[in-house]
Amino acid sequence: MVTAPSVKPVEFYFDFSSPYGYLASYRIDDIAKEFGREVAWRPYLLGVAFKSSGQSPLVSQPMRGPYHLRDMERTARRMQVPIVLPEGFPMATMAAGRAFYWLDGQDPRRAADFAKAIYRAAFAQGRNITPTDVVAEVAGEIGLDPAAVTAAIGSPEAKERLRAETESAIARGAFGSPFIIVDGEPFWGNDRLDEVREWLKTGGW
Amino acid sequence: MVTAPSVKPVEFYFDFSSPYGYLASYRIDDIAKEFGREVAWRPYLLGVAFKSSGQSPLVSQPMRGPYHLRDMERTARRMQVPIVLPEGFPMATMAAGRAFYWLDGQDPRRAADFAKAIYRAAFAQGRNITPTDVVAEVAGEIGLDPAAVTAAIGSPEAKERLRAETESAIARGAFGSPFIIVDGEPFWGNDRLDEVREWLKTGGW
Repeated sequence: MVTAPSVKPVEFYFDFSSPYGYLASYRIDDIAKEFGREVAWRPYLLGVAFKSSGQSPLVSQPMRGPYHLRDMERTARRMQVPIVLPEGFPMATMAAGRAFYWLDGQDPRRAADFAKAIYRAAFAQGRNITPTDVVAEVAGEIGLDPAAVTAAIGSPEAKERLRAETESAIARGAFGSPFIIVDGEPFWGNDRLDEVREWLKTGGW
Repeated sequence: MVTAPSVKPVEFYFDFSSPYGYLASYRIDDIAKEFGREVAWRPYLLGVAFKSSGQSPLVSQPMRGPYHLRDMERTARRMQVPIVLPEGFPMATMAAGRAFYWLDGQDPRRAADFAKAIYRAAFAQGRNITPTDVVAEVAGEIGLDPAAVTAAIGSPEAKERLRAETESAIARGAFGSPFIIVDGEPFWGNDRLDEVREWLKTGGW
């Protein structure tokens, strides 16, 4: 019996509080699709990774913070997409992450749509995506059941899944957002997407 | 009387101990020349900037260090240039910086040639470019007088110029290497060179 060779998905690790993850969310699916690949969307809690990497949120760092605010806006202008820093930025993203993994367990494509909707709510519309009710509201806007999402966010299973995925992301070497793994090769940053595309195209160099 | 509009040079801030600065040193002159611009090569002491930015040398950081070693090698392979981490990396670069500014006071183009030679000695040949005698030797290899370079490195003027240039770089916002300023617009990283080129081409966006 002959089976098709398994083609691994492009692993897209990100935190819902990450402006560069938001920017990458516009392109990652198209890049993968160009080469017949799926994207495994994998939100994780970057703050937990910071404990391993010794880092802190970028925009609160001296010198680097002001530069990156400027760079984010410049990058968004070049991509012709909106960007605002939402209320409470950098914000806690547990509720969004738990809702995501609950959805992911049912339908990974719907979960990816949800991830994009959350990112746009935060960084295009400036909404504070920390509270459960806002996460449920955004889910409702793309046709999901807000009550079911609210219940899922409070469930021990979703909580545990987000914890385990965060641990797994860190074990894989993720220390930033976006952090993309293509056939085992890690790429950090929205500014590495052209290289991700080239890696998919060529099989690496 | 009509005078030509002044065209500002592209300001190229870097530390001689920076692998990404080394990689950028292969491209920055060509990118500027394409648009009729000069490059002002500006070595500075990144370790002093780290005191302002709260950072530390990249490769000694947990998680980020191993990733960046891999990324440096991957970037060098893509550029088809050699890269090795020299003995004692990350290394002190005061002698090279002082020699540079002494040369820069006489002939900025020769100083840029010297900067490229130092970078190649370190990151293509793996030589330890910290000691004055190695810096003088590298200078000799490109036709400069090693004895004059040695004397310059020990001079209070060169010492003071490197100190002042480092202070100026930090005041301009430089916190990494390479750090490139085009008509007031800052770009951090070898991976921003395509954007630097686009900024020069379009006048910004």
